[in-house]
Amino acid sequence: MVTGTRPSTATAVDRRPAGGDATIRVGIVGATGYVGAELIRLLSRHPQVTIVGLQGRDRHAEPIGATHAHLASTGLTVDTELPPVDAVFLALPHGTAANLVPGIAGEGTAVIDLGPDFRLRSAADYPRWYGFDHPHPELLESAVYGLPELHRSELAALRGAARAIVGSPGCYPTATLLALAPLARTGLIGDLVVDAKSGVSGAGRDAKPDLMFGEVNESVKAYGVDGHRHVAEIEQELAAVGSAAGVTNPGADAVDFLPHLVPMTRGILSAAHVRPTRATSQAELDDLYAAAYADEPFVSVVAAPPATKHVLGSNRVDVFVRHDERTGRILAIGVIDNLVKGAAGQAVQAFNLVHGLPETTGLEQLPLAP
Amino acid sequence: MVTGTRPSTATAVDRRPAGGDATIRVGIVGATGYVGAELIRLLSRHPQVTIVGLQGRDRHAEPIGATHAHLASTGLTVDTELPPVDAVFLALPHGTAANLVPGIAGEGTAVIDLGPDFRLRSAADYPRWYGFDHPHPELLESAVYGLPELHRSELAALRGAARAIVGSPGCYPTATLLALAPLARTGLIGDLVVDAKSGVSGAGRDAKPDLMFGEVNESVKAYGVDGHRHVAEIEQELAAVGSAAGVTNPGADAVDFLPHLVPMTRGILSAAHVRPTRATSQAELDDLYAAAYADEPFVSVVAAPPATKHVLGSNRVDVFVRHDERTGRILAIGVIDNLVKGAAGQAVQAFNLVHGLPETTGLEQLPLAP
Amino acid sequence: MVTGTRPSTATAVDRRPAGGDATIRVGIVGATGYVGAELIRLLSRHPQVTIVGLQGRDRHAEPIGATHAHLASTGLTVDTELPPVDAVFLALPHGTAANLVPGIAGEGTAVIDLGPDFRLRSAADYPRWYGFDHPHPELLESAVYGLPELHRSELAALRGAARAIVGSPGCYPTATLLALAPLARTGLIGDLVVDAKSGVSGAGRDAKPDLMFGEVNESVKAYGVDGHRHVAEIEQELAAVGSAAGVTNPGADAVDFLPHLVPMTRGILSAAHVRPTRATSQAELDDLYAAAYADEPFVSVVAAPPATKHVLGSNRVDVFVRHDERTGRILAIGVIDNLVKGAAGQAVQAFNLVHGLPETTGLEQLPLAP
Amino acid sequence: MVTGTRPSTATAVDRRPAGGDATIRVGIVGATGYVGAELIRLLSRHPQVTIVGLQGRDRHAEPIGATHAHLASTGLTVDTELPPVDAVFLALPHGTAANLVPGIAGEGTAVIDLGPDFRLRSAADYPRWYGFDHPHPELLESAVYGLPELHRSELAALRGAARAIVGSPGCYPTATLLALAPLARTGLIGDLVVDAKSGVSGAGRDAKPDLMFGEVNESVKAYGVDGHRHVAEIEQELAAVGSAAGVTNPGADAVDFLPHLVPMTRGILSAAHVRPTRATSQAELDDLYAAAYADEPFVSVVAAPPATKHVLGSNRVDVFVRHDERTGRILAIGVIDNLVKGAAGQAVQAFNLVHGLPETTGLEQLPLAP
Repeated sequence: MVTGTRPSTATAVDRRPAGGDATIRVGIVGATGYVGAELIRLLSRHPQVTIVGLQGRDRHAEPIGATHAHLASTGLTVDTELPPVDAVFLALPHGTAANLVPGIAGEGTAVIDLGPDFRLRSAADYPRWYGFDHPHPELLESAVYGLPELHRSELAALRGAARAIVGSPGCYPTATLLALAPLARTGLIGDLVVDAKSGVSGAGRDAKPDLMFGEVNESVKAYGVDGHRHVAEIEQELAAVGSAAGVTNPGADAVDFLPHLVPMTRGILSAAHVRPTRATSQAELDDLYAAAYADEPFVSVVAAPPATKHVLGSNRVDVFVRHDERTGRILAIGVIDNLVKGAAGQAVQAFNLVHGLPETTGLEQLPLAP
Repeated sequence: MVTGTRPSTATAVDRRPAGGDATIRVGIVGATGYVGAELIRLLSRHPQVTIVGLQGRDRHAEPIGATHAHLASTGLTVDTELPPVDAVFLALPHGTAANLVPGIAGEGTAVIDLGPDFRLRSAADYPRWYGFDHPHPELLESAVYGLPELHRSELAALRGAARAIVGSPGCYPTATLLALAPLARTGLIGDLVVDAKSGVSGAGRDAKPDLMFGEVNESVKAYGVDGHRHVAEIEQELAAVGSAAGVTNPGADAVDFLPHLVPMTRGILSAAHVRPTRATSQAELDDLYAAAYADEPFVSVVAAPPATKHVLGSNRVDVFVRHDERTGRILAIGVIDNLVKGAAGQAVQAFNLVHGLPETTGLEQLPLAP
Repeated sequence: MVTGTRPSTATAVDRRPAGGDATIRVGIVGATGYVGAELIRLLSRHPQVTIVGLQGRDRHAEPIGATHAHLASTGLTVDTELPPVDAVFLALPHGTAANLVPGIAGEGTAVIDLGPDFRLRSAADYPRWYGFDHPHPELLESAVYGLPELHRSELAALRGAARAIVGSPGCYPTATLLALAPLARTGLIGDLVVDAKSGVSGAGRDAKPDLMFGEVNESVKAYGVDGHRHVAEIEQELAAVGSAAGVTNPGADAVDFLPHLVPMTRGILSAAHVRPTRATSQAELDDLYAAAYADEPFVSVVAAPPATKHVLGSNRVDVFVRHDERTGRILAIGVIDNLVKGAAGQAVQAFNLVHGLPETTGLEQLPLAP
Repeated sequence: MVTGTRPSTATAVDRRPAGGDATIRVGIVGATGYVGAELIRLLSRHPQVTIVGLQGRDRHAEPIGATHAHLASTGLTVDTELPPVDAVFLALPHGTAANLVPGIAGEGTAVIDLGPDFRLRSAADYPRWYGFDHPHPELLESAVYGLPELHRSELAALRGAARAIVGSPGCYPTATLLALAPLARTGLIGDLVVDAKSGVSGAGRDAKPDLMFGEVNESVKAYGVDGHRHVAEIEQELAAVGSAAGVTNPGADAVDFLPHLVPMTRGILSAAHVRPTRATSQAELDDLYAAAYADEPFVSVVAAPPATKHVLGSNRVDVFVRHDERTGRILAIGVIDNLVKGAAGQAVQAFNLVHGLPETTGLEQLPLAP
């Protein structure tokens, strides 16, 4: 719980809401960005959550509608400080949460950090990929990478932990890892090229010249050609999946990852081009993917190449896999809404697990199409 | 209730669901169009509804996902016939529902028709605006124009009526009438030009050359220059509002209405340019609109010109009014999502009233932005 | 000619290029904006022009490709000063050109100002609409409003004038005036509502939050509800057209003008809703428009509502007129590319006239569609 | 020359236009599609061409403006037959031109075929990739693959040939081959994944459900996952480039090619992910690309990842190459306007070479941005 007065203890807690009408008090830090807006959209309709505070840069008692007109009806206001909360969602620039979290989590408040500061297990990755030394490397081991499809039991185990810190995944890693996990688990990744396409909302809400409508519309371009930071997560988690299954994926060590900006607001499509370590077949791949995702509430294995619009506004993931007999390669595609499953929705999904709630609570919305 | 065997009686019914877990059995006819999809999206999450049947042209036991990929997870199938239902939503071309409804409504099934066949009170308007003679003019008087903000009590009165037929409003009339109703009620409309802009989803899902991406993108054009059919509804309802209030609006008799197609999928903005019948002021207009919409769950009077994105995916309406001191005119703007408040959401709102449910049931979703 | 050394004389000049390969030396001030880019695009292919200088804010010898990647192949550079030129195009914020022009024009250099500082004939309009007192009201009378279709002879007369100052029209006025001129000339405008739609490039290249792709895409909104500055030009020129024809247009005195931002980069559609001063007919209107534009190289009177894409990238204007028998009103629509006929192209067209060149020189490009 | 009466001889001709005002008479078959429109746009402004005939399906003396409103001002009409011409451009579905061309080319008329029927050198590739047996395999050897940057001298040699048949390249191959040619020439392609993104105009002008605005907008998807036909051209030409240079590229034999549809009208970006056959460096790549394209009028090697908007509406190609030190891979990107350099513009470029004209004639337009 975030307060200024409670002593900093770190004893085991039970994060399940009490019965009846009890709700979990939640705060959102970074509420004025696109991810913050999406957290508000989802959490304000979450049946077991009460949003008790929104924090934003230099905003004092400003109605959220002044920033996000579509959320005016929530009646929420943004302030410079948060009241005591049971859980806090952080949507902050990298390097910021790393300093805040120890104090918050030490108070027993569950932390769902949507930035990268608690995604990587190795402290050495932070100076390398993000350009800062992590101030609290001791917390990285206990923090959980918040991709429920890969770390469900670890997330659930935070329910009673003294400190609960979730490093919620990046948008590209989410789409990419869910497309590749069944292959990684089988040691099939012999060589890997990931070519991804994203709408512009992933770049945030700050006004930048190259995100103006006149520049983005009717155009596509690649970026991050000198190494996108999300590579670190992708390599870490592919290695972890392989390791847990006792296999190695030689192609997952130095991933060739290229993101593109496409003229749309939401959506990520990640196309993974895999040269397998051995001969395989469409039938084997179909079985692998069906087995991997049969019980996943948000993942569908689809028979035709999925469009990002099929999941727009929802927490869903569509995964597609194809064996190309001519080339012997595998194509694996994942599509998500970058602001939902790629950010706010996934954070709520992890939050549910941490609090012992059904994983889909508050995330039942169907996609919005056309 | 739609069945093949029950005798056609028309005695009073009580449409409120029984207590506990009882739900209302609902069918959707025209499920393969955009409006049909949106009905499925909303009704499949409606807590007191069970969708028991979807009907579509020549589809026999086809999964809805084959048509609407984003709805695959509902597990629903489309068929050529409906099972017995308590209520049916019709999303059909004009002239089709007029023949179907008498049989359905005679069986006690509530009918929410999203086409124009039961919107107009005068049978003479059908050959004039729609090019067909209405086959059942006797039903037009009892059918209710399903704009709850104007006809709430009549919709609620259908709860116990032998026949319950709702003619759910067109998209343009919804945005326009809600922008203008407070003026019409005060007799302020001395002259009226309505200039509206719509996304392309209002034109439906059938492949047409002028709705191809290459034609629509990066372009805007007017259409319907020889008289758009929605004028009939706008004039009828403005007259009704004035009449109920005992005033006349000389500018509402022959409305100059011009729609435009803009390069977006969803959204309607209707800008009504009014020359008032007498001098007025911003303060008077603010009071009129505040009073008119203070208790409306879905209508917000906003202080800055609203964008359609502020209501995207929701049943909300943003209304804006401005007195121009220089010209003496009034500008009134209404924005909606044409597929929600302009079609499926409004139909559900009316359905709720007809069944004695809270009006907002199943319609609580916040807008999706950015 | 702009130089630092020549005495400021103002004697008659002949602006026609000498024969043979002689070209007109041209400079562009404000080259780093969207209008500046469009001037470069057109003028670098103009057969009788040599661009000898580009000026931009704080840019010293920077290749134009650093700002406008699509113009890199021109090999031009932007600098803080211009060399001597025969003609200069100014694309500057309002209030800036007013101070610069007297010095430039006094040197014999023809000035085509694409801002508003020389569009209005009455100095009193500047504090009213633009919030500044014009520093050189004495120049307003001799400056010519650069709409060739209305002021061709005055533009041509600048060829030998001591001072040649063209106030190139705004984008909305261009589309609106060309749609309405035949009616204004006949005194038919009894009441006027102008409802216009524009792509975002009209708002310029500076990064602003409400012009970000995520805000503009999939949305439409009105703006300028407290009076858009372009009203001043529209009223001035409609009055001038009527006055020249010896008629009055009671509806043109206090125009109700409302602009909208639509999700596209280029294009303006202006829909003028006119209540005529007397009964008219489609046949009369057809004759009026055919007569008005029969010999205009860039204006087409079209039989179906025009789309902005039909003129994209070109200097063309499509005009459409319709008499509505039901309401008795007239609808007149004009569409242009706001950066070409609404800015750079029109400026080149006026430049051609001022220099005694065929009016279409350098402007022969066909529209780019789809 | 196409006529109905001349005997079918095939003697050497000289295709250069006679001096002075002489122009080349040109016909366009398939004028009602998007590629046909683009040919008209470019050729109607080509200083040494007269368009003497347009042919379209079932159109008899119909103004081109009825199909392509933006071309109405050309005054051209579409008919079911062509008059005699010196050169003909064919924009037809695959399998159609193969039967027409022998007759046309036999008459001495130069043929620029924009479909695939004369792109592949091996007749066996037609049943494999296009599903038809080529009716005239004897013509495939003498037909020239119309990518001037790779086959300039062969195109120029057609100037005096009895038969001149150009198989103008596909859009994806154009962007891909120009991105990769310098690597292929050096034998550097050890493994190759090509991930391409295209606007929808490449899919043509016929109304199809999945090309509707409502489906394409705000969405991205992959397609052609079972093998896109353009792979055949890419593999053929990469092999030819290597072979001509006396090197082999083991990665160019079975290319992994994946195209995507992105929500824009024009533009292709092809990202080629290459694992080199040996160690290389950015400096070596920079030298290779600079040398390859130093004298190419339409190809620019750019230092930052190019956007498709940078070449929109022009015949330009922007090429980018990057060595990734971390992974040891090479990224090569090519961007084009699919309808210009990817279709009509490239065809005109080849036409110029075949007729002894400067290669850039009629193709000098700068890109249209923003």
